[in-house]
Amino acid sequence: MIRTAIIGYGNLGKGAESAVAQAPDMELCAVFTRRSPETVTIKTPGVPVYNYSELAEKAADLDVVILCGGSATDLPWMTPEVAGICTVVDSFDTHAHIPEHFAAVDKAAKAGGNIAVISTGWDPGLFSVARLYANIALPQGSDYTFWGRGVSQGHSDAIRRIPGVADARQYTVPVAAAVERVRNGENPALTTREKHTRECYVVAEPGADLEAIRKAIVSMPNYFDEYDTTVNFITEEELLRDHAGLPHGGSVIRSGVTGWEGEYRDTIEFSLKLDSNPFFTGSVLVSCARAAYRMNQRGESGCRTLFDIPPALLSEKSAEELRAHLL
Amino acid sequence: MIRTAIIGYGNLGKGAESAVAQAPDMELCAVFTRRSPETVTIKTPGVPVYNYSELAEKAADLDVVILCGGSATDLPWMTPEVAGICTVVDSFDTHAHIPEHFAAVDKAAKAGGNIAVISTGWDPGLFSVARLYANIALPQGSDYTFWGRGVSQGHSDAIRRIPGVADARQYTVPVAAAVERVRNGENPALTTREKHTRECYVVAEPGADLEAIRKAIVSMPNYFDEYDTTVNFITEEELLRDHAGLPHGGSVIRSGVTGWEGEYRDTIEFSLKLDSNPFFTGSVLVSCARAAYRMNQRGESGCRTLFDIPPALLSEKSAEELRAHLL
Repeated sequence: MIRTAIIGYGNLGKGAESAVAQAPDMELCAVFTRRSPETVTIKTPGVPVYNYSELAEKAADLDVVILCGGSATDLPWMTPEVAGICTVVDSFDTHAHIPEHFAAVDKAAKAGGNIAVISTGWDPGLFSVARLYANIALPQGSDYTFWGRGVSQGHSDAIRRIPGVADARQYTVPVAAAVERVRNGENPALTTREKHTRECYVVAEPGADLEAIRKAIVSMPNYFDEYDTTVNFITEEELLRDHAGLPHGGSVIRSGVTGWEGEYRDTIEFSLKLDSNPFFTGSVLVSCARAAYRMNQRGESGCRTLFDIPPALLSEKSAEELRAHLL
Repeated sequence: MIRTAIIGYGNLGKGAESAVAQAPDMELCAVFTRRSPETVTIKTPGVPVYNYSELAEKAADLDVVILCGGSATDLPWMTPEVAGICTVVDSFDTHAHIPEHFAAVDKAAKAGGNIAVISTGWDPGLFSVARLYANIALPQGSDYTFWGRGVSQGHSDAIRRIPGVADARQYTVPVAAAVERVRNGENPALTTREKHTRECYVVAEPGADLEAIRKAIVSMPNYFDEYDTTVNFITEEELLRDHAGLPHGGSVIRSGVTGWEGEYRDTIEFSLKLDSNPFFTGSVLVSCARAAYRMNQRGESGCRTLFDIPPALLSEKSAEELRAHLL
């Protein structure tokens, strides 16, 4: 059994916990939190909760640690720190900062003799490998990624910071006509506005200026100003009733050509439709934790992404079984 | 430059030739054929065509060989034979016989100190890795594979062997309603008949008994008897005009659940729409040839499938470039 720990017990930590419980070759040995451990009640019976400060002294009893913190403020320092102590996986998803995150984690993991798999989940993660396989099969072509319909935590948080907003949920929605054009091999040049719209469900505080909130949302730089955004004011009850879940999904599409003159047109599409983003992401993290452990067992150290992992290492099934049933 | 040769110059060999020509890090050094070399004119200028019997003496000047023979009678003996001489890739696609093919090729490749990547292309190949990634992300679920709409060479050949048939083209067609049920997460149990239909376009010889041909097709064991099959008689001109291409494609769909009680339902889909099956398959083979060469350069030998290959090895781009642009 692969002795596994989870750091961080938010939505993603809960998803990873459920996935570890269902993995026949892994056991959950501990959960670490930066809160007071006694305030955190986890679902798996008999598993201790420790403060994050206790990780170093417990690390010798762990094979791999699953980091379930956020990319904005947790993972940039936490993944390198943990990689120096233990083999680790994270879901760092700030695409623009992946090269520097990789460099920092690689240095720490090599120094510690550990493997660190970063930026896994679905995007980056399964969407990334879909883009890579599509690129090797169709070297001449264009990549498109559409996200949604799904809840964006970052955009929901941004709305909540506006004065007068009590709560909010933001859905990213792909523009169906744009997706169809890409699927049809039209290779369109699409602006940000043409690819996605943003739907906001906002609970206002009593007496708040709704029009001011609406304007603050739709004009917010980076988050909303380049999109067609709709703002719907609803009650707290409606938010809890109709928008409690964290669904997500999307499609990676590559449209390209083969043939001496590019005479054959091909389309490759990989798509996800997820009821729960954090539970799915947690499941992918757990498979990467298995692969990380195996690579470390082979004597490897350093930072890896899904691009570096032979897919069979992610599965608990044997190579023979995979060849016989999935090849 | 990776010195590459192609064995077999049918549709797949032509597809591989075109893909090698477009790979910036590979050069085509030779084509081998079992026909008289002087009867084979290839597209790449200045590249020699040899008889297959000359492979052993030329092998020292080659880094990797792309086998473009058929799975029924060529590859079962040819891949082990070539793997003893040179690093090699094939597209062996008889799913039921992959384990024994793997064993025979592995033995020969290890004895020769070579790498052999078998069963690559799109199914087996990209569809296989799609199934594997979907299985590691959703360990609890069901896999579905739909093929088409596309030309099945094997079924077209089977029709051509019927007395009175001059030529034929067979399309495998997924049943749209079944695909929709799977996409909707209904997890249906589907019979062979419920998943695909078969459309046949047949040119009859003058005076042939059309009804006898139709009956021979629709009742043919394994090929047609378990399917709803339509037979359309057309002229040779219509066949050449409307059915000259070799399009194909299909979808791998996994429908599964996450959560402690399986309360979240997810769908993963990977699909292809290809104007030319052999040119796309040739392109995938060429990327696998690159990976095979690289694994052999690292001192590895033996048989591999896409399950064993870190995806980054398939690309001519550097790890840094892939992380920066595709992750």
